[in-house]
Amino acid sequence: MTTVGELGEFGLIARITAGLPLFPDVIVGVGDDAAILDIGGEEVLVATCDAQVEDTHFRLRRGSSHDIGRRALAVNLSDIAAMGARPRFALISLLVPPTMDVAILDGIYAGLREEAAQFDVALVGGNIARNAERLIIDITLLGTGTRNKLLRRDTAKAGEAVMVTGSLGSAAAGLLVSEDEQLAAKVAPEELAGVLAALSTPTPRVAAGQWLAQHGVTTGIDVSDGLAADISHICEASVVGVQIEAEALPIRPEVVRIAALAGREPQDLALFGGEDYELVFTVPADHAEMLARELFVATGVSATAIGTICEGSAMTLLREGKSSSLRPGGWDHLRLQDSSGG
Amino acid sequence: MTTVGELGEFGLIARITAGLPLFPDVIVGVGDDAAILDIGGEEVLVATCDAQVEDTHFRLRRGSSHDIGRRALAVNLSDIAAMGARPRFALISLLVPPTMDVAILDGIYAGLREEAAQFDVALVGGNIARNAERLIIDITLLGTGTRNKLLRRDTAKAGEAVMVTGSLGSAAAGLLVSEDEQLAAKVAPEELAGVLAALSTPTPRVAAGQWLAQHGVTTGIDVSDGLAADISHICEASVVGVQIEAEALPIRPEVVRIAALAGREPQDLALFGGEDYELVFTVPADHAEMLARELFVATGVSATAIGTICEGSAMTLLREGKSSSLRPGGWDHLRLQDSSGG
Repeated sequence: MTTVGELGEFGLIARITAGLPLFPDVIVGVGDDAAILDIGGEEVLVATCDAQVEDTHFRLRRGSSHDIGRRALAVNLSDIAAMGARPRFALISLLVPPTMDVAILDGIYAGLREEAAQFDVALVGGNIARNAERLIIDITLLGTGTRNKLLRRDTAKAGEAVMVTGSLGSAAAGLLVSEDEQLAAKVAPEELAGVLAALSTPTPRVAAGQWLAQHGVTTGIDVSDGLAADISHICEASVVGVQIEAEALPIRPEVVRIAALAGREPQDLALFGGEDYELVFTVPADHAEMLARELFVATGVSATAIGTICEGSAMTLLREGKSSSLRPGGWDHLRLQDSSGG
Repeated sequence: MTTVGELGEFGLIARITAGLPLFPDVIVGVGDDAAILDIGGEEVLVATCDAQVEDTHFRLRRGSSHDIGRRALAVNLSDIAAMGARPRFALISLLVPPTMDVAILDGIYAGLREEAAQFDVALVGGNIARNAERLIIDITLLGTGTRNKLLRRDTAKAGEAVMVTGSLGSAAAGLLVSEDEQLAAKVAPEELAGVLAALSTPTPRVAAGQWLAQHGVTTGIDVSDGLAADISHICEASVVGVQIEAEALPIRPEVVRIAALAGREPQDLALFGGEDYELVFTVPADHAEMLARELFVATGVSATAIGTICEGSAMTLLREGKSSSLRPGGWDHLRLQDSSGG
C-alpha cells in the first residue's frame, strides 16, 4: 500500500490528473495557478480554488478570526493575480465543527467581506457542511481576463530576466517569531508586527498582475510554496532552467535581522520560506529595468530582477560568486515535514 | 455562547449572508441552487459548490470509492440541473488524510472521471490539502445557460401546478436498508440494488433541467434536503404557499414495500427523505399534462403533478382527504438529528 503522504502533494496531483481528456474550451486546465476557460464571450474566465485548514494554515486564537477570513480570500486572490486576471466572484465552502462558537465565524466573515470589498469581489454562494475536528475554509474564486493576455507558467524563454514583486522572506520571518516567544521578545515591536502581518494577512498583487498581463508579460506565478519551488513550476512547464542570484533577492532589513537572531540565512527564508504571495515573472532582459519603473508608477509595487532563464532544465543558485544546484524544495501540504532545502 | 450546531445550517447561512452588497453582474447570488453571473457574453455563468464529507455523506468501504467519486460530482450536477444550465467545468478540492491508501483516491477519481465524461464536464483544476481525520471532496461546478432562461426559486405563482421528475423516496429506502441488515435480508436482490444505487449514485436530471428551462419553465429546485424542505425554499423565495397531495407523490413499488417492512409511511420517505436529486418545478396548471408528455419524449424523464402553488405562505399536505400543515423538515447538515417531520 502507498499512502497519500508517501506520494506527496505533487505526486498525487500528477497521478490523479494524468491523461485527462482535452476540451476545446479549456485554454489552460490543471497545472497552472488557475484554469483559463472559454465560455464564448470577449473575456475568458479564470477559476481557482484553495482551502485554508485549521492547524495547517492557521490557528484559532482570540482575535485571529478576522485575519483568517481575510487570508482565506487573499491566497485565492493571489492565484488570480498570478494569472493577471481581474477577481470577480467567490464561492465560500465552510467545513465547520458543530461545537464552534458562532462568534468565530462572524469574525471570519467580517474579514472575508473586508477583503472582498477591497478587491471588488462579490460573495455569490457557497456551502456549509460538518467537519467535527477543525474548521476548513475552501474558496473558489472566479475572475475574468483578456483572451491571450494572461500570465501562464509555460511561456518562459531562455535569456529572459526573472523578476519578483515586493520582497521575500517576510512571511517566513513571521513564522519564526510566531513559533518562538524568546526570539519574538528580541524583535522591535513594529518589526514584529510587520512580519506577523506578512504571514497572517498577505497582500495579493492583484493590480500588479493585471498591469503585467496588459503590458506584454506572459509568464508569471505567485510565491506560495517558496520561491525555489514556484520557479521550478515555471521551469518544468516552460522546459527551461534558471539561475538565481542570491545577493539580488529583495529582503527587508527586519527580515535580515530576525534571520540573524534565529541563526538562519535570510536568503534561505527568501528562497524556501513561501507564503509571501509576491509575483514572480519573466521579461526580455533589456526590458526589465523600464518595466519595473513603469509597474511602480502604475501600481506602487516594486519589482527586482533576481536571475535569468537558461536553456536546459538546471536550477542554479549563484551565491558569493559560487554556483550551486538550487533544489526546488518548499512546503508539501501532504507530507508532515518541510521538504525544502532551507 | 451560541454554537454553530445550535444555530443550524439555515440559521448560519442567513447570518453570514445578511446584508451582502449588491453587484450588477450578479444576477442571482446566495440563496438559490447556484449563482447566476454575468461576465458579458451571450451566455451567463452558473456556479455552485457542494462538499461530500466522509461519515456524513459517505462511508469508505471496500469497493465504494468509485461510487463516492461519481456521487460527489452528481450532487453538483444536480444543482446545475436545478438551474436549467449546461454543466461545463469542475474544480475538485480534496481534503485528505496523509495516511489514506492512494488506491482509494484512484477509485474516487475513476468515478469522478466517469461521471464527468458522461455529462461532458471538464476537470480543470483543484486543490489538495491535509485533513487528518477524514476525506472531504469539495467540488465547484461551473455551467452556462441562456440569459433569462434559467430556473430560479423566486418565480413561482399562485395557481401553478407543482411537478416532480422521476420518483421520490428511493434514496431514503436505500438508507433504511443500508442501515438495517435484517431489513435488507427481506428485500429482493434487484430491488435492494435499485434503492442502494439511488442512494449511492443518484442520476442528476441535467437534460431535463435544460429542456424545462428552454421550454418556458422558470421555477425549479432539486430534491436534496427532502421534498418538503426544498419546496419550502421555493415558497419562501417566491412568497407563496403550497398544497401537496400525498396520494399523487410518485413512489416506486419497491419503496412502498421497503417502507412497509420498516414500519414507515412511504409518503414520509418521499416528503422528508431527501437525496433523490429529482427536480421540482412549477408550471401553469393547464400546461402540466402536455409539458410532462413533451419532457418525456425529449429526455425520457417522467414528471408528475403533485400539488398546487397557493396564495399566502402556508404549506399544507392533503392526505386521505384531510388537510394538515406540512412542516418543511429535512436534513440539517449541522445539527446531529434529522429535523424532519417524518
